[in-house]
Amino acid sequence: MTENRIPHVVILGGGFGGLYATRALRRAPVRITLVDRQNFHLFQPLLYQVATASLSPGDIASPLRHILRRQRNVEVWLGEAVSVDPERRVVRLRDGELGYDYLIVATGATHAYFGHDEWARFAPGLKTVDDAVEIRRRFLLAFEAAEREADPEARRRLLTFVIVGAGPTGVELAGAMAEIARRVMPRDFRFIDTKSARVVLLEGGPRVLPSYPPDLSESARRQLEALGVEVRTNALVTRIEQDAVWVGDERIEAGNVFWAAGVAASSIARSLGAPLDRAGRAMVEPDCSVPGHPEIFVIGDLAHLEVDGAPVPGVAPAAIQMGRFAARQIRRDLEGEPRERFRYRDKGSLATIGRAAAVADFGRIRFGGYFAWLIWVFVHVLMLIGFRNRLIVMIQWAWAYLMYQRGIRLITGSPEMRLERARSSGGPRTGREAEAAAVHAGEGGSTG
Amino acid sequence: MTENRIPHVVILGGGFGGLYATRALRRAPVRITLVDRQNFHLFQPLLYQVATASLSPGDIASPLRHILRRQRNVEVWLGEAVSVDPERRVVRLRDGELGYDYLIVATGATHAYFGHDEWARFAPGLKTVDDAVEIRRRFLLAFEAAEREADPEARRRLLTFVIVGAGPTGVELAGAMAEIARRVMPRDFRFIDTKSARVVLLEGGPRVLPSYPPDLSESARRQLEALGVEVRTNALVTRIEQDAVWVGDERIEAGNVFWAAGVAASSIARSLGAPLDRAGRAMVEPDCSVPGHPEIFVIGDLAHLEVDGAPVPGVAPAAIQMGRFAARQIRRDLEGEPRERFRYRDKGSLATIGRAAAVADFGRIRFGGYFAWLIWVFVHVLMLIGFRNRLIVMIQWAWAYLMYQRGIRLITGSPEMRLERARSSGGPRTGREAEAAAVHAGEGGSTG
Repeated sequence: MTENRIPHVVILGGGFGGLYATRALRRAPVRITLVDRQNFHLFQPLLYQVATASLSPGDIASPLRHILRRQRNVEVWLGEAVSVDPERRVVRLRDGELGYDYLIVATGATHAYFGHDEWARFAPGLKTVDDAVEIRRRFLLAFEAAEREADPEARRRLLTFVIVGAGPTGVELAGAMAEIARRVMPRDFRFIDTKSARVVLLEGGPRVLPSYPPDLSESARRQLEALGVEVRTNALVTRIEQDAVWVGDERIEAGNVFWAAGVAASSIARSLGAPLDRAGRAMVEPDCSVPGHPEIFVIGDLAHLEVDGAPVPGVAPAAIQMGRFAARQIRRDLEGEPRERFRYRDKGSLATIGRAAAVADFGRIRFGGYFAWLIWVFVHVLMLIGFRNRLIVMIQWAWAYLMYQRGIRLITGSPEMRLERARSSGGPRTGREAEAAAVHAGEGGSTG
Repeated sequence: MTENRIPHVVILGGGFGGLYATRALRRAPVRITLVDRQNFHLFQPLLYQVATASLSPGDIASPLRHILRRQRNVEVWLGEAVSVDPERRVVRLRDGELGYDYLIVATGATHAYFGHDEWARFAPGLKTVDDAVEIRRRFLLAFEAAEREADPEARRRLLTFVIVGAGPTGVELAGAMAEIARRVMPRDFRFIDTKSARVVLLEGGPRVLPSYPPDLSESARRQLEALGVEVRTNALVTRIEQDAVWVGDERIEAGNVFWAAGVAASSIARSLGAPLDRAGRAMVEPDCSVPGHPEIFVIGDLAHLEVDGAPVPGVAPAAIQMGRFAARQIRRDLEGEPRERFRYRDKGSLATIGRAAAVADFGRIRFGGYFAWLIWVFVHVLMLIGFRNRLIVMIQWAWAYLMYQRGIRLITGSPEMRLERARSSGGPRTGREAEAAAVHAGEGGSTG
């Protein structure tokens, strides 16, 4: 970089990694451009609560500009980075270019369907607000369509929910869906027994929450089963089609399949020139930089880094630590200090399963159940950015907990999209109508 | 209807009219099927707050099933009514048919572009949750695109917001948008002065809020102008195109146009066999029934009824009163009582303009300003269905009022849709980049 010029730090991605890197540079003599495809920072650990109608997207999202309004050395850009040209030191956006002196790439990971991208339309994953709203739509529509369905076979299929992958997201989705079907929905429907809904959690490996110690996996499994989830391990999905999932040769009829399994790095990693691991993540140096390009850092879910022989996990605390670390290396560069090696401090893991159910892993201290769940609630509310959101989320949760309710039960999207699925379950509903008449006739006396 | 059979009341539409009709029949010896395209009742008077990023859709929507869960004689169907066959007493749905003994049609009104349907894509209206989210997206994107725009002409165009129609919705939208541009956004942007945003409210008639008394129109106009809105009356829109609105021969360059003018009844009215008025509403008998078909009631925005020479206005209280009235006529039929004539009781009108600004019309008592606004807040929170929503809305409003903030500033939708507009303002941004560097360089000393 030339003299007399403030170094320009470009940060791609306003998730945990990018946002904490930005904040850690607030007193550094640099100018920062933070580029994100969204105008908001998303508190991703709670995204499954949007998918299961407990929170509104707005409750777990804060505008990036607003979070950073007081940090005068940052400019926030709404834009999508397509690739990086490390030689020219330029980021290519969908609609332009952006030069940099330092680059922090924190664009995260997306779903991977093990090479079966055609499964995506049958089994949406959960990475963005739009994903969450789409899962919410499908989940709620299944009950609506089942209520109008005369054929018991079709009704059963509509009320079967399969979640593929038993990492934290899969466990949380399965637990929340079972809970809603068993405790929230029953009173609202006249014909279907929502408690009969089948929630199946499929895991290719030998146990749920594979990144946790075995005893916690066992605890999580028991808690899931207590909620009514059918947990199947060593169950590798071989095919997904409209209304069915195949596990080996077995066909599971299911109107609703959700994907919480594979994760793949964003395509931007390829352009960096760094070696990639199997999931497409950039293998970085101990200082999180790209080999041969100390001015480019890769952090968060997009980075593959082993510390003391163990890979840094793809979780929010790791992204936050890497973001702060990368910022510190830039400051050290500017002050002429040598680079450091990144060390991951594992502060423990928490996964929630449902109402008053969770597992906690703090190294030597490990436990499941109610107390783990309380800690989970506390930690997540504490971590939410922005006081307003914290308050709203607390109230929504307290309400849901006390009233067994889910407030945000909206099916949105174009009427065509909404009705398409209901229609596909259609056929003549004469039998249904007759049944309806009979039920009402029988209840006539007790009306009022 | 035959003996020994409980009469079947079909209610189309779960808005104010349909919902209050349903509730008023809770003790009647009937079975009810409530059909709506949505699974929720929407508190439409606050929809503009979703469009202007103050509330989440979930805050003003409640699942119909949940509202009616204790009323055992109701079945809720997610479905879209296409037409009615009054001779066969059958409602045609998009995906089936539904017979009835009594029919209450409460499907409301939609936008009308005065025969210019091609304007719809340039100037979205505000009737549904999806409309509101689309307006929110365009409104917020305009600032994002302007921040990245080098050309001052283009920037001015991006920051010009035109609202067509100065009824309550237009007034509320214009007030909220001006307020956000002037009070909420300024700190969040680095390059643009959001206070320079131009909000233009166009009204074809001689005054804003045409259905209010002239002195309140004048009060509303003054309050709007104090907020920075450019109010133009007798301004008939003759053409809308990408990036411009024509008023007569004058071309107003505007990147954002919103439609709050014409209202047209839903197409279902045509199939009823009732005479229609110019806006497509069904002209009904004094008992709200269709001429020649006493078993069909049309209520709410879809009905055209004059009481004592004055038309019943298309507002929520009128729809609620008509819903209850139609339910009472059905009960009277079943008890052998004669029909009544509908009488509209005007309990007053309230329109809000912005923070601490509103007008109130209670017949002899009329006033504008802070006190009118307080009453508006009180009445709207009171009317919100469901305690959870009431509490959340109160908190969101209190927060917005105290902090001059708007919490729900999400731009959602597909990345393509989001970026399309940003891109369209594109061109080379080299000049912009240079400017950015200069600004930061100038500020370098004060960073931190």
